Formats: sequence, structure tokens, C-alpha cells
Amino acid sequence: MSRRGEFGLIADLFAPLASSEPGALALTDDAAVLDLPAGYQLVTTVDAIVAGVHFLPDDPPETIARKLMRVNLSDLAAMGAKPRAAFLTCAFPKGLDDQWIEAFASGLAADVAAFAMPIAGGDTVSTPGPATFTLTALGLVPAGTAVLRSGARGGDLLAVTGTIGDGALGLLAARQADGSGGAHQAFLADRYRVPQPRLDVAAGLAGHMHACMDISDGLVQDLGHVCEVSGVGATVDMARVPLSAAAQAWLAEGRGSWEQIMTGGDDYELLMAFPASAAHIIAAWNASGGTPVTVIGTFTEGTGLHLTDPAGQAWTPVRTGFTHF
Amino acid sequence: MSRRGEFGLIADLFAPLASSEPGALALTDDAAVLDLPAGYQLVTTVDAIVAGVHFLPDDPPETIARKLMRVNLSDLAAMGAKPRAAFLTCAFPKGLDDQWIEAFASGLAADVAAFAMPIAGGDTVSTPGPATFTLTALGLVPAGTAVLRSGARGGDLLAVTGTIGDGALGLLAARQADGSGGAHQAFLADRYRVPQPRLDVAAGLAGHMHACMDISDGLVQDLGHVCEVSGVGATVDMARVPLSAAAQAWLAEGRGSWEQIMTGGDDYELLMAFPASAAHIIAAWNASGGTPVTVIGTFTEGTGLHLTDPAGQAWTPVRTGFTHF
Repeated sequence: MSRRGEFGLIADLFAPLASSEPGALALTDDAAVLDLPAGYQLVTTVDAIVAGVHFLPDDPPETIARKLMRVNLSDLAAMGAKPRAAFLTCAFPKGLDDQWIEAFASGLAADVAAFAMPIAGGDTVSTPGPATFTLTALGLVPAGTAVLRSGARGGDLLAVTGTIGDGALGLLAARQADGSGGAHQAFLADRYRVPQPRLDVAAGLAGHMHACMDISDGLVQDLGHVCEVSGVGATVDMARVPLSAAAQAWLAEGRGSWEQIMTGGDDYELLMAFPASAAHIIAAWNASGGTPVTVIGTFTEGTGLHLTDPAGQAWTPVRTGFTHF
Repeated sequence: MSRRGEFGLIADLFAPLASSEPGALALTDDAAVLDLPAGYQLVTTVDAIVAGVHFLPDDPPETIARKLMRVNLSDLAAMGAKPRAAFLTCAFPKGLDDQWIEAFASGLAADVAAFAMPIAGGDTVSTPGPATFTLTALGLVPAGTAVLRSGARGGDLLAVTGTIGDGALGLLAARQADGSGGAHQAFLADRYRVPQPRLDVAAGLAGHMHACMDISDGLVQDLGHVCEVSGVGATVDMARVPLSAAAQAWLAEGRGSWEQIMTGGDDYELLMAFPASAAHIIAAWNASGGTPVTVIGTFTEGTGLHLTDPAGQAWTPVRTGFTHF
């Protein structure tokens, strides 16, 4: 692609994604210059995705872009932060056609609007390798209020947002071209391709949390991370793990397993520690119609994960988490 | 590489690069949380480099890392910003050996220390393609003081830092394995591989500039950008363009050309517009021993670049700039 191609692309497709942010300087300067409110801290996260590793070349480009945006927004949510601006780097293979890039940009535009998250800058390069995208997301938290992974205490409630396991089952669903799964298949594939960052829960409940992280590598592995850095253990009652109707159906039909639900990746739900005294606040939140928050266990003094399956038996996963690396 | 490999790498090589920044949370959380001083704006820039496009696989890994850091610092300097923190994404080919990665990290560590620029986060992924690195650099400017490309006015002095053309000649030098160029060859290759971000000039003179950008794609092309967004033209007296002793020697020996000097990339010097009244400030700066600032022409009302070669003849480049894209 020529230099003219780069500038043309930026002007045509990406500059509109910056239009709501004057500090982006219409993507014509060396850097963006953003106003920040006094009394806040800056929360910064970065995620990279590579064709053939994190997505397949025949995945819909719109959803690739939206997932990239949303996994970063999910990281901001996990810190209790509010989105401020994003920076996108695209490494395009020379053979990639304009239609693919246009579809990618249109998916991004949808989420720039949905989350009021402008693309305030970035870089565009060519690569002899696979398409590679890196998004840097900036967010804001009132100073001193960021929710870390390390704050869980023995006796805390262990809770999750939304439903668990849809990401892993959704990966299966997205890879099955036969359509035999019907509406459930479409639902799960969409859950895999377009995760929902739980910014509403972050905005509403972060002030009550002791700890939070987002579940990207599987509930069991990510719970292990929280326990490790917090110096606590945890018990999980799998009968209380919230499942979508689709996941319940696939589990009943033997199309999915508890192993996949508990250890699969790509859920992008929040895993949270609340003091026991916050139970009524969680109940009030759920009554208010926000993204459901479900208590599935407790954090415990000492170390170790203790999982109990729906039949009341101790349960141990074969593997501890999905890895993209 | 295994997930254990990723966490091991981060812990061993990258966590020390974050150690000076408590907000990096030792790279163990979903995101970094940085304190920002009141009354400042956040300056953000991103650069990506791809093996085989922006560097060669046999380039020294230390200098690849340092150049990545420095081209971003150069963008911050061009805005008049002070470095605050960086975020690094590495896409490593599966076959890359640990020694290469360790050398890369050691180069980065040198510049993290030299510029007090911690790596406060990032992402590490594997790729079936070439090694690809993306750095997001955050900097700070007192609110309202960022120097944009768009502020040049007719009558302004056109000035540059350091010496011009070493980047393009250095690329040639770095690609010649015969060593016939001696000390000049080594000097130029080093200038190409390890550019010097002109943060001292930014800190000392930004308050006097009308406009600034860093020269990455060649003096002529980048001057064209400043003129275009500022709505002005420019004249350049090539006899005043500052050349290193090495560049002068290569020019005299026919190993380099004015075409390469004026339109080659990778200088990472600053191109600046100053009001004519700032001439004595520039003189005082130069007398103080900072990175030399040289007036090479003037910005003019209207449009168009008018270049005069050292013999006093009008000069037009064959091409207008180097492109990585």
C-alpha cells in the first residue's frame, strides 16, 4: 500500500472515529492532546490480536473490530474506570482488500458511538505477516478508587456478572458452519464474537468492591489469579454459576461441558469480591435491572480453590484455563 | 510459547521496566493506574514496527527496542511534552529465541532508565508472522501549551535541531557490511539505529514555538505537512541545512546525495516555526550548549516550498519522502 494509501485510509475511515474528540487534532499531528479532569487517575490497558491466533481470517471484520474494542473496555470496567479515548494500531497485510478494512472500520464506528469512546490516534503500517491490531484504551477513575485484583479478603462474597461459559461454547458455535445449533448457536457465537463490557456494573458497584478482574482466560484460572495476588482462597458452588439458556441447553445436550464452562476463555464477565455486608446492595442492583450480579461462592482465609459441582461433589478441572499465547 | 512462558517473560524481563512506576501495579492487574498532576494535558502517541518492514531481523535487538522507544519520545518532544509512561505490545514469532528477547529487553531497559520512561503495561502475544512491536507513549504538557503542526505563520523562522540526513545515510551505512566507511559509517549507522529524541529542545524552547513536528519521513515531506496544515509556504536555503561531519564526508565522496539528505527518513530531528523575534532566544539556547537549533529558512504567506541548493540554484527533489507503508 502506498503512503497515499495510508493517508487516504486514515482520512476516509479513521478520522471520523476521532471526530468527537477535539484533542485527536483530526489525526493530523504527532500525538493527541487530551484534557483530563482534576482529581482523577488515568487507567491504561492494551490488547493485541493477531489473525490466525486471536481471530480467524474469515471472521466477520466488523466483529473483530468490536471485540478488540470491547476486551479493552472490559479491562477498564474491571478497574472501575470510565472510558476516555482509544488508540488503534493496524498492521495490514498487503493483500488485504479495502472492503475488509471498510467493514472493520464500520464495526469500530458502531462501538465508538455505543461507548462514546473515540479513536484519538494510532498508527497504520503494512506487514508481510497476518493482520495484527493493537488497541490502547484510556479510562478515568476518581483518584484512589481503582478496583484492583489484590483486594479480596477471607469472608468476601465471590460474584460474577452476566453468564459464564458462553465465550468458550461460543467459540465452538462460531467454528461450526452447519447451523445445527439453531438460535442457541447464533446466540453463543455472538457472545464469543461481541462480548459485553460490564461498564454499568463498574459504574454502579465499583465503590463497593474489594477486588475485581475480568474473566478472559476462564473462570477457574482468573479466580486463581485474584486469589494469588490477594493471598486468599475461594470456594465455588457450581450450581450457582449463572448459565445462559443456550449454555444450559448445550450442557443438557452434551454439546458443551462444565470443563468448558469453568475453564474456557472469552467470557469478559467481571469476577468480583464484595464484603459480606454488600449482599443487600447486590440485591438492590439486581432489582434495578442492571447486568445481573450473581454470588457463586466465597473467598476464604488461606489458599486453594474448592469447587463443588451441581451434584454436590468436589470438582477439579482437567486444565486450568485457555491461553492465546 | 506456553502461557507459563508469557508470564515468565513478563516477570523476568518486563516487570523490572515497570518497577519505578507504582501505578504499573507490577504488571499484575488488568490495567495501569497513573497519577496525573492537575493543570496538565495528556499527550499520547503510538508507533508500530514490523520485522522486515521497519527493521531487519538481523538488526541488533537492543537498538530495535531503543529506536521504538525513541521515535515515540520524539513525537512527545514534537508536542513540547514531557515523557510520563509507555505501554509495550510484543507479538513474538514462535521461533524467536530467548536470547533475542533478552537483548531486546536490555535495550529497552537502558532507555527506560535514560529517559525516566517506565513501561507501565502492555500485552504479549504470539504471531505466525514477523516480530511486531507497538509502543504507546504518554506524556504531559501544561494545559494549553502543546505545540501543534498547524501554528506556523508567514514570516516565521524555519529551524531544525541537530543534523539532517544522517538517518537516510545511516540506513545505507547500516546495510553495508563491508565496513569500508570507517568511523563515518559507524556514526551514521548509529544515528539510524538509535535516534536522539530532542526532549531538551522541547523543554527549553517549546514555549517560544509557533509550530513543531518531528522529521520522520524526510525534511521535504514533513515540511510539506507543516505548511499544509498551517496554510503557509516555506523557503529553505540548503546551504544552511546542518550536516554532520560524516554526512559532509559522504556527500563529498559521492556516497550520499542531497536527494537522500533532504527527502530521506529517520532523522527524528525537530522541524520548528519560531516568530522572527525569537532569533535571540535561539542564539542564547545555542550558546547554552543544548542540542543545536539551526535556522534554515522561513515560512511564507501563501503556499509552496521553494528550496535553493548550496550553489544558489532552485532545487526540486525527485521524490518527496521515504515511506514505510
